[in-house]
Amino acid sequence: MSNTNQAEPSPEADRRTVRINLGERSYDIHIGQNLLRQITDFVPVSLEKRSVFVLTDENVSIPHAGQVYEAVKAGKPHSVQLLALPPGEATKSMASLEQVIAWMLDHGVNRDSVLFAVGGGVIGDLAGFAAATVMRGIDFVQVPTTLLAQVDSSVGGKTGINMPQGKNLVGVFHQPISVVCDIDTLATLPRREILAGYAEIVKYGLIDDPSFFQWLEKEGQDVCAPKPGPAMKAIEISCRKKAEIVAADEKEKGMRALLNLGHTFGHALEGAAGYDGRLLHGEAVAIGMVLAMRLSHRMGLCEEKDISRVVEHLAAIGLPTEINMIFPPLETTPEELLGFMRHDKKVSMGRMIFIIANGIGKAHATHDAEQSDILEILKHSMDGP
Amino acid sequence: MSNTNQAEPSPEADRRTVRINLGERSYDIHIGQNLLRQITDFVPVSLEKRSVFVLTDENVSIPHAGQVYEAVKAGKPHSVQLLALPPGEATKSMASLEQVIAWMLDHGVNRDSVLFAVGGGVIGDLAGFAAATVMRGIDFVQVPTTLLAQVDSSVGGKTGINMPQGKNLVGVFHQPISVVCDIDTLATLPRREILAGYAEIVKYGLIDDPSFFQWLEKEGQDVCAPKPGPAMKAIEISCRKKAEIVAADEKEKGMRALLNLGHTFGHALEGAAGYDGRLLHGEAVAIGMVLAMRLSHRMGLCEEKDISRVVEHLAAIGLPTEINMIFPPLETTPEELLGFMRHDKKVSMGRMIFIIANGIGKAHATHDAEQSDILEILKHSMDGP
Repeated sequence: MSNTNQAEPSPEADRRTVRINLGERSYDIHIGQNLLRQITDFVPVSLEKRSVFVLTDENVSIPHAGQVYEAVKAGKPHSVQLLALPPGEATKSMASLEQVIAWMLDHGVNRDSVLFAVGGGVIGDLAGFAAATVMRGIDFVQVPTTLLAQVDSSVGGKTGINMPQGKNLVGVFHQPISVVCDIDTLATLPRREILAGYAEIVKYGLIDDPSFFQWLEKEGQDVCAPKPGPAMKAIEISCRKKAEIVAADEKEKGMRALLNLGHTFGHALEGAAGYDGRLLHGEAVAIGMVLAMRLSHRMGLCEEKDISRVVEHLAAIGLPTEINMIFPPLETTPEELLGFMRHDKKVSMGRMIFIIANGIGKAHATHDAEQSDILEILKHSMDGP
Repeated sequence: MSNTNQAEPSPEADRRTVRINLGERSYDIHIGQNLLRQITDFVPVSLEKRSVFVLTDENVSIPHAGQVYEAVKAGKPHSVQLLALPPGEATKSMASLEQVIAWMLDHGVNRDSVLFAVGGGVIGDLAGFAAATVMRGIDFVQVPTTLLAQVDSSVGGKTGINMPQGKNLVGVFHQPISVVCDIDTLATLPRREILAGYAEIVKYGLIDDPSFFQWLEKEGQDVCAPKPGPAMKAIEISCRKKAEIVAADEKEKGMRALLNLGHTFGHALEGAAGYDGRLLHGEAVAIGMVLAMRLSHRMGLCEEKDISRVVEHLAAIGLPTEINMIFPPLETTPEELLGFMRHDKKVSMGRMIFIIANGIGKAHATHDAEQSDILEILKHSMDGP
C-alpha cells in the first residue's frame, strides 16, 4: 500500500482534540483530516518493539486499515498483524471474539501489545472487548471510520458483543488509550450511514444544548455532506458532550442514562426488525427521539412545537421519523414492542427507564412513564399521522 | 436439601474478617465454620427481588451449593437458579463462559443480579469472568470450597478462562462484593487438594514473613489436618497478605508480581504436564518455590540452608519438591521447559521475570536471571539429587 499521492495531514491548527478525563484512564480524541498516515503521532506510547495488531472489517481494510498498518510498521514494532473480519453485526459474536483472541495469541500478543480497531462500531466494540480481556487487558486505539462510531461508540469505553438473546449483552468498560477520528474516512461512507450517525449528533442537542440543536438546523446538511469544517465541529461537540457525561458517570450508574435518549424506543424497533439491515441503529434512534418527545408532550413536559422541530429537522436531513417509514414494514404489535423494551439491559428492578425532555435541550430520565401512553405513542407512529 | 442436623454457625467471636481495601471496590473476606447456611448475612446487599444465580461444579453441588441455594431462597429473591458444571480445568473454557452467560440471560439476569461462585478456582475464575461481562458487570460473591481457592484464587479479583494456547489467557480484573470461606468445606476435600492449597500458604511466608514460615514449620500438619484453629489462622494470614499486595497493585503492574514466587517455574511444569491431572497447580508451585530458592542461591542471594528449610518443610507436609517426583514423569527437556517460561503471560518486552529471595521472607522480582543458571537448575531437579 502506497503513501504517495496523498494530501498532507491537516495542519495542527485545523485539528481538534477532546480530552476524556477519567483519571489514570484519561485519553484524547483527535479529530482531523488525513490522520491515519501518521497515526503513531496520536498514540501516547511508543510502538517500538511491541507486537501490534490491526483489526478491521473487509469493507474498510483498504485503504484505511492499510494506512494504519503501514504507519505502525514505520514505528519499528516487533511485529504487526492485520486481520479483516466480515462486515456486519453478525461479527460481534462470541465466536469472533474467540477468533480475534486466538489470532493475537498465535501471533505473540503480550501485555505490551497494542490493538488498533479500524472500522465502525462493530469492529470497535469487538476489538475493545478482545483488548480488555486478552492477558486481562492490553492497550487499544480506536480508529472509527463511520460517523456513528466517531460521535458515539468510540467514546466512552463500552465494549462488547451480541448474544442470541440480544445486542451488547456481554462486554466490559475498557477505555482506549487514544481515539483517532479521520474525517476523510467519511468520504467513502454511504449517505445512509452518514445520516444514521447524524441522528446521534442531533441527540446531543436534544439532551442539553438547544443552541447546538439550532446550529444543526442550519448546518446539518453541510455536516452530512460532509464538509470538513461543519463535520469536524459537529464531531468535536458531540465527543465533548459525551465525554462530559462519561467522565461524570463512567460505569453508567446515573446521568449516563441521558445518552439513551431515543434508545429505549429505538432498541425495541431494532429488536423487532431483527437486525436484518432494514433499520440502522441511528435510524431507530431518530424515530425513537421523536417518540420520546411525544412521550414528553403527553406527560405535559414539552410543547407540540418542540416535537415538530425535531420531526422537521430529521425529515429535512433524510432520516425516518415514524415507525411506519421502516421498509419492509415491521410485523409487530405495539404490545410486542413494549415487550422488547421490558427486556432492555437498562431495565432496573423491573422498571423501564425513559429519557424525556422539558423541551429541546432539557432531557432527564424517568421511571414513571405510563404503559398506556407508550402504547398509544407506538400505535400512532405505526398507523401514520 | 435439608438444613436440619447441622451445627450452628461459628459464633462471631470465632470468625475472622479480612478487609480488602480497594476504594469503592472494597470488600470483606469472611472466614469461619458453617457459614453457608446463613450466607446472606455475609453479602453486603439485600437479595430481595433480585434474580440470583448459583454456579458450582458437580463435585460440590451437594451439600455446599445446596446450602447456598437454600439460604439465598430464604432471602426472598425474585428467582434463584443453580447450575452445576463438570469439574476440572476443561470447564474454564470459552464454551463454558458462553454457556454460563446464556444460562443467566435465559433466566432473567439484569444489572441487579448477583452470581454466587461455589467451588474451587475453576468455578471462581469462570463465574467471576461471567459476572464481569454479562450486562457489562454484575455483582458476584466468591464461595471458595477448596483451600487453594480460599487462600489464593478467590482473593484479588483475577477472573478468566483458558485458551488452547494456554491457561488464564483471557479474563479481566473484577472484584467480588464478598468472599465467604467456610472451612467446613475442607472436610470433604481430598488430602492431595489440601496440600496443593497449602503450597500457596507457604509462599506467603517465603515472600515477606519469616515468622509465619516458622509458624508453619510447627503448625503446618494441623493446618492441613485441617484443624479449625490453625486452618483459620493460616487462611486469615494468607488472605491478609494477598490483600495487602493486591491493594497496593490491583492491576498487577508491580509488586503483585511477588505473588508469582515459584510460579514461573511452576507454570512451565504445568504446561509440560499438559494439565492432565498428574500435577496440581499447588504441587507445581511447591516445586517452583524450591527452584526459585535454588536460583536465588545461585545468584548469591540466599544460603544453602534456606533452600533446605523449604525443601524439608514441603517434604514433611507431603508436597513434591523436585521435577523428578512428578509421576508419570515429564517427557520434556530443560530447554523445552525454558520455552514454556518464555511464553508466560508475565513476560514483558521479551524479558522473563523471576521472583527470587535474599532468604526466607525476603523476596523480590528480577529480570536478570541467567538462562544458563535456569537450565542447570531444571536439569538438576529432573535428574534427582
